[in-house]
Parts: sequence; C-alpha cells; structure tokens
Amino acid sequence: MNKPFNALFLDLDGVLFVGNDALPGAVRAVKKAREEALILRFLTNTATQSRQHLLDKLGAMGFTLSEDELFTAPIAAKHYILDHNLRPYCLIHENIRCDMAGIDEINPNCVLLGDARDDLNYQTLNHAFQLCINGAQLIGIGMNRYFKGEEGLMLDAGPFIRAIEWAAGTEALIMGKPGKDFFQQVVASTPFQAGQCLMVGDDVIGDVEGAVNAGLMGCLVRTGKFRPEDERHLPPGAKIVDSLYRLFS
Amino acid sequence: MNKPFNALFLDLDGVLFVGNDALPGAVRAVKKAREEALILRFLTNTATQSRQHLLDKLGAMGFTLSEDELFTAPIAAKHYILDHNLRPYCLIHENIRCDMAGIDEINPNCVLLGDARDDLNYQTLNHAFQLCINGAQLIGIGMNRYFKGEEGLMLDAGPFIRAIEWAAGTEALIMGKPGKDFFQQVVASTPFQAGQCLMVGDDVIGDVEGAVNAGLMGCLVRTGKFRPEDERHLPPGAKIVDSLYRLFS
Repeated sequence: MNKPFNALFLDLDGVLFVGNDALPGAVRAVKKAREEALILRFLTNTATQSRQHLLDKLGAMGFTLSEDELFTAPIAAKHYILDHNLRPYCLIHENIRCDMAGIDEINPNCVLLGDARDDLNYQTLNHAFQLCINGAQLIGIGMNRYFKGEEGLMLDAGPFIRAIEWAAGTEALIMGKPGKDFFQQVVASTPFQAGQCLMVGDDVIGDVEGAVNAGLMGCLVRTGKFRPEDERHLPPGAKIVDSLYRLFS
Repeated sequence: MNKPFNALFLDLDGVLFVGNDALPGAVRAVKKAREEALILRFLTNTATQSRQHLLDKLGAMGFTLSEDELFTAPIAAKHYILDHNLRPYCLIHENIRCDMAGIDEINPNCVLLGDARDDLNYQTLNHAFQLCINGAQLIGIGMNRYFKGEEGLMLDAGPFIRAIEWAAGTEALIMGKPGKDFFQQVVASTPFQAGQCLMVGDDVIGDVEGAVNAGLMGCLVRTGKFRPEDERHLPPGAKIVDSLYRLFS
C-alpha cells in the first residue's frame, strides 16, 4: 500500500472511541498503521480527562501508544502558562487539576477556560469576564462548539470562550485544535513536514479545517459527532471516509 | 404649538428617571404631552423587572400611564411567541416569569434567553443549545454585553446569546431596542406611520440610531447615561435636547 502521508494524526473521541467503547475497526486500524511504519500521534482537546487517564483508557481498549505520542490541549496550556510566568484563574474540569500541578493561581493575571462543565455558571463566568475586561489574558483549552455525550450533543468550551471574548472585547489564545501552534508543535515532534502528515477527526472545523490551515492534510470521518451537513464545510482537498479503518481497506 | 410628530416614544431609565427618582421636569413633560393630545408610548429593554413592577414604579414617581402604553422587551417576546404559536424554553429572570403567564412551555420549539443571572449555568445553557441545534428558534431579550451592577461590571444576556448562536450555528431574533421589529410593533399600536413618531432616549445607539433605522424620528437627551462623546454618533436628522422637558419649552 502506498500512502500519500508518512505520519497519521488521530483525534481520539469519535475517531478511536465513543464513550468507553472502541469504535469498530479502530484498534485494527492503529495496528495496521504501525505495521505500515507510519508515525502516529494522538491529539485531543479533551479537558475533562488527564493525560494519564487517557493513556490508561486507551490501553484498556486495546490501543497501544506511548506518553510521547499523546498531545493534549491542557498540557499545551500548562507549558504556555509556565513559559510566560502567568498566574491563571482556572475554570477547568476537576479531572485535569492534576495536569496543572505546580502552577501559581494566587492573584490571577490570566484566565484559563476549559470544558469545566458544571463549574461553568454565572458566578464563575462573570469572574472570568471581570478579570478579562480588566486586562487579564484569556486562554482557551480548545475551541470546540460541542461534543457528543451520552445525552446527545453537549456544549464544549468554545461557546463560553466566545462569550467572554465578546463581552470583554478581547481575543482568546486557543490551546489545542484548531490552533495552528498546536498542530505545528505536533508536526515538529515528527521527522516530517506538515504536508506529509494527515490529521483524521470527526470535527470538520476543529480537526479538518484546522489541520488544513496549518498545512497538513485533513480527513473527516463519518463517526462520532459527524453530521451529514458537515460535508458541506469540508475544506478543498480534504478527504472523507466512513471510519478510521476505511483508510486501510 | 405645532409639533412635527404625533406620537412620542419614551425610553424609561435615564429619560424619565434615574434609580428611583424622577428626573427634573420629566413628570411635567409627560403631562404636557397628554395636554397636547400626543400619543404616548414607553419602551424599555429591562429583563429583570416585570411590566406590572414598572407600572407601579412609574406611578409612584408621578407618571400616569396605562398598561397598553408600556412596551417592554419581555412582553414583545411574549407577543411574538403567541403570534407564531411558539412554545419556548424560558431561560429568563424569575422577576419576569409573571410576564409570560399563559404561554405554553411544554415540548418547547424555541428558546427565550434573557438576563437570567444565576439561572444561567451549564445545564440550562446546554439545554438551550440542544433545542437550537435541533432547529428551535433562538429569541434574545436585549443584546447588551454587560451592565453596571453593585459589584462592578456584570455579564448581561448578550454574551450568552452569542454563545448559543455560535454553538448551534443560528442567529438569534433580538427582542427590544434597537431591533427594528420592536419599534415597528410599537408604531403599529398607534394610528400613525413610523415617520410621525419621535423616539426619545439616552442611548444614542439603542434608542436613537435604532429608531432612525426603523424609520422613526430620533432624539437624544443629555440625561441618564448620556456622555458628550455620544453626540458624535448622532445619526443624521436626529435631534438632541438637554432633557425631556426641553421638548416642550
């Protein structure tokens, strides 16, 4: 098999699994990719599961990967915060608090806003707004509109980030997909150029358009939160397949 | 006295009163308008006070008006909802629940989102989003970014409306000023054309520009939240007076 890409970047939720179940053929697809000596990277914006938890979860489903292959938006945010000596007001999910170990949160001068789920309420969002309108930098973990949960489509962090941006007249720095920086950071971890890397995801904007904008190839899967209308938004040159396994069959 | 208008539309806060006090000459101005047989209408976007509460408050200050003369954004929303046989999921302030009496909220096919303060949380906003992404119309009460509260600047409904719009890929219908529909609804309650109605307000965008865009005459007052810079934004043909009473002296 002769593939036009040397590295395969995989979104997790909706591509490899939904909920706690691997998607049909996904484990085989990852095995096939390894057999074909493709460089593999796993990219996620999830802000409700720590890196360690994700590694354990993927392992339990039968996926084999190393810590170095997994790139999460919260870890990218942590690196940015430490590199810039920032003190965030963290509006994040309790599950990823452990990813932020060692960060100074006293007297905040920035806001870190992720998929904090039930911690997103009028009081916490208003506090974030008040900090931002007084000059604090807004850092978003991902910029997804929604995700597919057990109770259907659910609001992700993006809409809340948009709300604070608009209210405070500021622009958030987005960690994770579709941020160009994030894709470039992952490309830099491979021996290849962006154009030799294929990003596969179920989010036509966050995964596919983001990757294409960063110079990668993009591919949408018809699994996870995919909806038929998404095909209309496929960027020129991007692929579409029924599932991850279809890349190999 | 020969006036170029037959109907006088008045904003409340900043034109008739500030806080709980009538502005100087405002009560006399309304009396004068009645003596001159002008049609009077009172327009407000407030989404945290019911129509009855406003009527009581204005009455206590010495203004005489009937319920029919008072147009509030929540009541406009109610009329729109009834006229279109909509069943809203109401995410509104508890103070204006009484304004929605008689509305069918079972099996909602639209979302009514106002300044609901602490009722705005992940669960309620997510429910609003799920309805909208499945085709429910989003109706916003006002579109302000923030207001000045006792604890400083506070998030208004606008950012939450923006969040749902962006997440669900929809555009909200905004009730209240400066919405053209709102002004047209008030004009339709008079025997006159828009061009025979004068709107007086202290918000150069929400009141004056909004009115002019809807075909009315507009007049800015130098009371309430008026700031000298506002004069630069006065639309062509709009008037400006020191206070409401100056229209009659």
